[in-house]
Amino acid sequence: MNRLETLIWQNHTLKLLDQNRLPTEVVYHEDKTVEGVFNSIRTMIVRGAPAIGVAAGYGMVLAARNQKSTQKENFLKNLRRQGEYLKTARPTAVNLAWAVDRMLEKAETTIMNNKQANIDTILSILEDEAICIHEEDIQINRQIGLNLLSLVSDGDTILTHCNAGSLATAGYGTALSVFYVAQEQGISLKAYADETRPRLQGARLTAFELSESGVDVTLITDNMAALVMAQGKIDAVVVGCDRVAANGDVANKIGTLGVSLLANHFNIPVYIATPTPTIDMNCPTGIDIPIEERSGEEIRKVNDTAVAPPDVKVYNPAFDVTPARYITAIVTEKGIIRPPFSETLKRIMLS
Amino acid sequence: MNRLETLIWQNHTLKLLDQNRLPTEVVYHEDKTVEGVFNSIRTMIVRGAPAIGVAAGYGMVLAARNQKSTQKENFLKNLRRQGEYLKTARPTAVNLAWAVDRMLEKAETTIMNNKQANIDTILSILEDEAICIHEEDIQINRQIGLNLLSLVSDGDTILTHCNAGSLATAGYGTALSVFYVAQEQGISLKAYADETRPRLQGARLTAFELSESGVDVTLITDNMAALVMAQGKIDAVVVGCDRVAANGDVANKIGTLGVSLLANHFNIPVYIATPTPTIDMNCPTGIDIPIEERSGEEIRKVNDTAVAPPDVKVYNPAFDVTPARYITAIVTEKGIIRPPFSETLKRIMLS
Repeated sequence: MNRLETLIWQNHTLKLLDQNRLPTEVVYHEDKTVEGVFNSIRTMIVRGAPAIGVAAGYGMVLAARNQKSTQKENFLKNLRRQGEYLKTARPTAVNLAWAVDRMLEKAETTIMNNKQANIDTILSILEDEAICIHEEDIQINRQIGLNLLSLVSDGDTILTHCNAGSLATAGYGTALSVFYVAQEQGISLKAYADETRPRLQGARLTAFELSESGVDVTLITDNMAALVMAQGKIDAVVVGCDRVAANGDVANKIGTLGVSLLANHFNIPVYIATPTPTIDMNCPTGIDIPIEERSGEEIRKVNDTAVAPPDVKVYNPAFDVTPARYITAIVTEKGIIRPPFSETLKRIMLS
Repeated sequence: MNRLETLIWQNHTLKLLDQNRLPTEVVYHEDKTVEGVFNSIRTMIVRGAPAIGVAAGYGMVLAARNQKSTQKENFLKNLRRQGEYLKTARPTAVNLAWAVDRMLEKAETTIMNNKQANIDTILSILEDEAICIHEEDIQINRQIGLNLLSLVSDGDTILTHCNAGSLATAGYGTALSVFYVAQEQGISLKAYADETRPRLQGARLTAFELSESGVDVTLITDNMAALVMAQGKIDAVVVGCDRVAANGDVANKIGTLGVSLLANHFNIPVYIATPTPTIDMNCPTGIDIPIEERSGEEIRKVNDTAVAPPDVKVYNPAFDVTPARYITAIVTEKGIIRPPFSETLKRIMLS
């Protein structure tokens, strides 16, 4: 089986790979209304900021198509109302509001600039815009993958942590894009995936999407990373990230710091895969990135099964910060950024 | 609640803390026959080589007490037969056979050297011998704890991995003994326990026994060790071990290598707690220690719940080897051993 699509737009229907049922079931959920898309985002049938943004674009197309009004002013008013509604599905996902606003702006400028356009024309233009958002996300990730590919060699084995994969995006993913781009070019890369406790994104998502796509992937527990590095099995570490500070410090899923320090010990390069919007030039260093602490139940239980005493004290930080000096390169759609990051990040972000 | 006893000998009954029901239930299982003890060892109600040895000693007392024969030669013959039977409960546990043989030897020498001794006297001597095995194990561990205690300071926080605790021994444990000895002396030590995937001994056993004993313990996932070290929360790493090679390389539960390398990075001392029989002078280096690979199901599932694709490739080594140069000291009942281990281990093992 070839690469699984996270989102498919077909016959005015949004088909979403139901991520709540992975990895035990591979089922596509279908939405034909904006209310359906709202629920899919809210219940995390679709997850990952870029994928949510793409789903929201199609959600706005469905909102537009299902309108009764043929009067343009009412059409726009209704569309704005439905956009506000859609934004509340998960209010913290930046890409959600961004995609809704981009669709609304497209509708407004089309109506304003083209007085002749009838509703059918507008619907067609909105559909094109949603497809454009979808394709842009794929292209950004694919370019990150191509840039990563220039850093590794045929036959290499890459260790990754958490899931910076196609399931979180419209396709390719950030860190995992290197495997898919390599496949397209007939280059052979192997993967080791840390399971990534407590939420097991490595086991549930990365191991799943890579093996479904035919990538040779081996799942390990987080505490096995040192051993596989010591055994000489790992040629590079590639991970995604949640935020890059202006000095190159990187916040990512808990465990990234340990993996990076161990890789440095064994002289294995550490590559951070990220689209440029994740680089926050207003955040001077990693110290300025707050670390979210999550419920202890995530550690005390695995899928509702107790694995520890019910009332034991737990520390559950969701992220850690890897200092810039342990990072070999930050790989973006705009190019490969190398130390000194304080200078090179500024250069690429201003270009 | 004070420290939980793994084994209690009372009114000719062996009470075992049922380790299959931990941490959700704290239940003592009672055995009054050698067959009962056999089943408790086989079904892992009691586990950990030292604890199994102690249980076997009491098992032999029960075997002797429940005999009908008052004729010494038959008594000894029956006891030998029951000893052979008891040894088969878990044939690979060295301490099991060792304890059975020690009890048989005691019976034989008593009968041989003391012609006047009646069966009641012999029973009493055997009971004393079993209690002696029990107390020796406690004393060895307690001495390890005292030696460890000399290496840390009041108020320190110690990170541990897996379970080298009282549950695997007759009391105190090896690595965890330092916490119990500190409690006795009014010294305050805090603990961080790695959960220790895949079998979660840290979550199920270490977090359980330390919190039950009133030790301030915080449970973390294995991939959080680097962060808590970076935050300056950890003063020392103390772990048990499965085998020490003659050069000081140490085989222990998977993940110990990563924890040790990270501790070295942050200039945190790494102490290995072990009784001297675990030091194998016939094993030159860690390369000579084979690493057991276990079933991938341990990673793909947590307590029968699937957490990964059912057929994904898995690497599941049960142990790793930490090279001697990353170990600050090996702490035994005979004293604290420091580098160069090739010389110091030889000295202590020949003394």
